Amino acid sequence: MKTLIVHAHPEPRSLNGSLKDLAVTTLRGAGHEVRVSDLYAMNWKAVVDAADYGPHASSPLKVAADSGRAFDAGELTADVRAEQEKLLWADTVILQFPLWWYTMPAILKGWVDRVFTYHFAYGVGEHSDTRYGERFGEGTLAGRRALLSVTVGGPEAHYASRGINGPVEDLLFPIHHGVLFYPGMEVLPPFVVHSADRITADDYPDLAKAWEQRLLTLESTEPIPFRRQNHGDYEIPSLQLKEGLEAEGRTGFGLHLRG
Amino acid sequence: MKTLIVHAHPEPRSLNGSLKDLAVTTLRGAGHEVRVSDLYAMNWKAVVDAADYGPHASSPLKVAADSGRAFDAGELTADVRAEQEKLLWADTVILQFPLWWYTMPAILKGWVDRVFTYHFAYGVGEHSDTRYGERFGEGTLAGRRALLSVTVGGPEAHYASRGINGPVEDLLFPIHHGVLFYPGMEVLPPFVVHSADRITADDYPDLAKAWEQRLLTLESTEPIPFRRQNHGDYEIPSLQLKEGLEAEGRTGFGLHLRG
Repeated sequence: MKTLIVHAHPEPRSLNGSLKDLAVTTLRGAGHEVRVSDLYAMNWKAVVDAADYGPHASSPLKVAADSGRAFDAGELTADVRAEQEKLLWADTVILQFPLWWYTMPAILKGWVDRVFTYHFAYGVGEHSDTRYGERFGEGTLAGRRALLSVTVGGPEAHYASRGINGPVEDLLFPIHHGVLFYPGMEVLPPFVVHSADRITADDYPDLAKAWEQRLLTLESTEPIPFRRQNHGDYEIPSLQLKEGLEAEGRTGFGLHLRG
Repeated sequence: MKTLIVHAHPEPRSLNGSLKDLAVTTLRGAGHEVRVSDLYAMNWKAVVDAADYGPHASSPLKVAADSGRAFDAGELTADVRAEQEKLLWADTVILQFPLWWYTMPAILKGWVDRVFTYHFAYGVGEHSDTRYGERFGEGTLAGRRALLSVTVGGPEAHYASRGINGPVEDLLFPIHHGVLFYPGMEVLPPFVVHSADRITADDYPDLAKAWEQRLLTLESTEPIPFRRQNHGDYEIPSLQLKEGLEAEGRTGFGLHLRG
């Protein structure tokens, strides 16, 4: 296995830092190759702007089109090209981050915004009567697995099906489905640590064991069964789920799960 | 009305830039006061780090606790204090942004991550048998209205109730409910422009008219009826919605709407 870990926490001695370090040692110990993009340590530039596209930045700037032309020419900035190369090298991608305001920290969002360019992560493939580009189950990153490892301040009950924050799987859906499945990756169920600020040294061994267990079974874990866009479940080009396919009682994001 | 517009697009001559400019002129023309935080023009620092908390940064860094101590001492960085002051000045807050990867651009997420500190936007109020802090309908920003003005690349059908991306109101829920309603703001239904890259000069007058209409009726627009945390709908402290309160067929994020 070749795993890319993208890590987004400002404090190396944090729970997130420990989980990242444990992933590196556990996977390497099992004979796997690991690369780490530690975004804070790299001083990752979080903000998309014209400098990202060099001579391909048009005036006025067009983020999608300009990023696509810079990608096609192999002239995206070196930091972005390096991340794209790591994603192509990997067969498994882990994003390690704390849930801040119900989604990823800005530095990690900026990794997505800058690395997932047009023609690399979107705007890929042809449109026809039966296909609407290669996305949602097809695309540049097809054949890879992805996993979110997330620390959450609140307790599990607050993120359960009736919890006030909304179900954690729904909060993560825009990342699982919209960022990872979109360019073709299969997405494994997330590793979520609740009440993260209350984890003590006494709690840590059990937590570490659970994380090691997940890491050592990545290859046999069943992915979340998102529906593929071009496999007959959706009308083309409206991309509405065809009538009658959903399991009883499923609405909202849940419609986009098979079975 | 005193309106703060937080704007997050790298190109002033973009559709987002035009909608922001139109909001300024429309509101001022109607006699309202307007302030703008143009995050790209301000070169807004998007990334939370120890420098944000000066002498209050502990080692190891604790983002929540350290931000709260710096806030209490009035010693957050000047850029963050200025944004908090603008939020307290405003009675209406508009966030203008393009939907990138199903949520806000990194620069705007970094505005939330850095400005919405502990003791300002969270960690406010006491806990008891009937109250779980002041949040979700109460808090520092209570009495204010908020509105998202969002441009979206895809067509409306792709974001409808059965659309492949998921319903746009569910994609925006973590921002509406988790970022804006959390510290106390009432949230108005969003202004969403679909197929934004295909808007032509011929389309713009109708779009501008619709936006002006929304802007001039902000004070009379009914907010999204999110349930308040401390008003009897949730068990304390599990914060699970009490049985039997939901409208038939409502699940997921929809549970947290009244009626």
